[in-house]
Amino acid sequence: MTIADRWLLPDGMDEVLPPQASRMEELRRALLDLYHRWGYDQVMPPPVEFLDSLLTGTGSDLELQTFKLTDQATGRLMGASADVTPQVARMDAHSMRHQGPSRLCYCTNVLRTKADLNQGGRSPVQVGVELFGHAGPEADLEILRLSLASLQAAGAEELHLALGHVGIYRSLVEAARLDVDQERTLYDALALKSPGALASEVAASVRDPGIADMLESLGTLHGGPEVLDAARDALAGAPAAVGEALARLRVLAAGVAAEHPEVALYVDLGELRGYRYHTGMMFAAFVPGYGQALAKGGRYDDTGRAFGRARPATGFSMDLKLLATLGQHEPPCDGIWAPAEGEGVAEAIADLRGRGDRVVQALPGQSTGPGDHRCSRQLVWRDGQWQVADLEE
Amino acid sequence: MTIADRWLLPDGMDEVLPPQASRMEELRRALLDLYHRWGYDQVMPPPVEFLDSLLTGTGSDLELQTFKLTDQATGRLMGASADVTPQVARMDAHSMRHQGPSRLCYCTNVLRTKADLNQGGRSPVQVGVELFGHAGPEADLEILRLSLASLQAAGAEELHLALGHVGIYRSLVEAARLDVDQERTLYDALALKSPGALASEVAASVRDPGIADMLESLGTLHGGPEVLDAARDALAGAPAAVGEALARLRVLAAGVAAEHPEVALYVDLGELRGYRYHTGMMFAAFVPGYGQALAKGGRYDDTGRAFGRARPATGFSMDLKLLATLGQHEPPCDGIWAPAEGEGVAEAIADLRGRGDRVVQALPGQSTGPGDHRCSRQLVWRDGQWQVADLEE
Repeated sequence: MTIADRWLLPDGMDEVLPPQASRMEELRRALLDLYHRWGYDQVMPPPVEFLDSLLTGTGSDLELQTFKLTDQATGRLMGASADVTPQVARMDAHSMRHQGPSRLCYCTNVLRTKADLNQGGRSPVQVGVELFGHAGPEADLEILRLSLASLQAAGAEELHLALGHVGIYRSLVEAARLDVDQERTLYDALALKSPGALASEVAASVRDPGIADMLESLGTLHGGPEVLDAARDALAGAPAAVGEALARLRVLAAGVAAEHPEVALYVDLGELRGYRYHTGMMFAAFVPGYGQALAKGGRYDDTGRAFGRARPATGFSMDLKLLATLGQHEPPCDGIWAPAEGEGVAEAIADLRGRGDRVVQALPGQSTGPGDHRCSRQLVWRDGQWQVADLEE
Repeated sequence: MTIADRWLLPDGMDEVLPPQASRMEELRRALLDLYHRWGYDQVMPPPVEFLDSLLTGTGSDLELQTFKLTDQATGRLMGASADVTPQVARMDAHSMRHQGPSRLCYCTNVLRTKADLNQGGRSPVQVGVELFGHAGPEADLEILRLSLASLQAAGAEELHLALGHVGIYRSLVEAARLDVDQERTLYDALALKSPGALASEVAASVRDPGIADMLESLGTLHGGPEVLDAARDALAGAPAAVGEALARLRVLAAGVAAEHPEVALYVDLGELRGYRYHTGMMFAAFVPGYGQALAKGGRYDDTGRAFGRARPATGFSMDLKLLATLGQHEPPCDGIWAPAEGEGVAEAIADLRGRGDRVVQALPGQSTGPGDHRCSRQLVWRDGQWQVADLEE
């Protein structure tokens, strides 16, 4: 292997250098502090678990994305975490067993076998929150508001929020009594966002003309919050669950509009991203100039069932690496350059550091100077004491 | 698989629950802030690299500890990082290429195939610093002092520092012209810390009586800093490199004693932990009650050679999980419990959170109360406004 080969990194397995690493650290703190103020407690899920646990319940779609590892101690197959949410659901269901609502947050590395356009690289730093134990719209609204507050804390200015609900499509498909293949073809047609493809699939597989019309209307029911009014008419004959889903979306849309009038709200009743994962409302938040959602989330009730305790659950997550590219700024050049030696210099340096200053001490024979180490000031001996002075003096 | 199986975690792959996760986060911040004040810039190495890069140079001893993964994109073998230091050396040598000394720090998860008594579990959170580009004792002393400052920041009170230097044993073995097998047997005898075993191995393989005496003396040259004086006599006839190593240890011991008189300093010239990894001084810091070192480090020059740039290097690392068990404390119970609804309550909550308060809002129908969510105060409507009041009122 040549030297040139040795430093090649696998695609999507990035290193983060200064100053971007500090920017990420700063954002990590801002977000975890925000979650603390909202009553969320931090957890740290294990980076590796037995594969069976990782791919249970909500995690079952993650098989292809999960790196497999053999546990030398037991011979059992383990997996590297590809998504923190199912792990936190396990922790809530099994390890914590709190009564009542439980609010948890996390910020941790995950690994994915494949880079996904919608998910960034293969080594995202996943940061997010989960609210367990409450099925009402209040919990969903809290999650929506906290996701918007997170993006604003990261420096996002122009925010677009896309809101949907898996219960609408799911109830209509159930009412249409489709078989698995028909359902999958219809799902693909809707995901294509092509009205023609959707219309022909519906015509081919849905017998009930009322249900057919309603399924077809999902392809056009997207736009501003007024879509919810149009949907009330278009889906009037749908099963009761559809009406409940629409009612919940109305509460959420009104809540977001009231507290975040600056956010552009978009409703899409045909949006199925995360369909198999979610059980209720789902959302994605976008910022102009980014081809992918910066925050994604929604309701995923009963994930904990596989671990012995079904609980309502709602939450969202983001990739800290992507998020840190918002509102970038240069780190301040405010260090103090200190000489390598001198009577009492160690005490003077310790004193400055104790007061929070950044002090870079020169090493004997060092060829670089203060400017190379982000120092704008220097520690000098003057008038019988160590003093901080500007560099040019 | 039963429910009971699903939540079993692989041995040494731990989850961290509240409040311990917050304690770790707090300590992470305290340490990274400390390193910032000392002029160290944060980096985030990739969690996975091609195996060839990971196991190059300093990393070559890590093969057994490294989980192997196949890169689906290229078919090449990758490894999960088991030790951050070789990665940071690669980043310094290749990605950054700074002139002059370079100070870097990190805090990140690593994975190890086996739990090691000396290294904690299989998923430590490795935190540490590296100082590249300076070969002098000043750099080593800075690293020693920073490791002690780190442990004190973590709450360690009674600190023991064990100091050694691989150059002493290495030079004597070279002078003894041992073959590989003889060297390994001697190494094992010294590591056993059994004077009898050492004496018989030396007698069996070392012909030069002067070198034999000196090698045997390594088994007893441990104790307080006065060991360095005894060593000056016992190793007077050794190659020049031994004298240089002793001189450096004297500078370091004096520097630590001057700045950290509270630390119990221990010198062990027969200590070989990290022998193949290190090239100069090495150290480990202990706290009573812990069977393993809380910080370990030393000099490891020229690691970057494999990546095209040999550089002097010295540094140390710690396991944040282990460190966070020092100075444990309960999180404050100072949250404010807010009602689920009420005119203007959302604004009052936003206002409190904006000022840094932790506010937990009740959800409708919630069965748990403020005490279950670490709240000692509540938000109440009184005298025509929202006010924070004690719980009992």
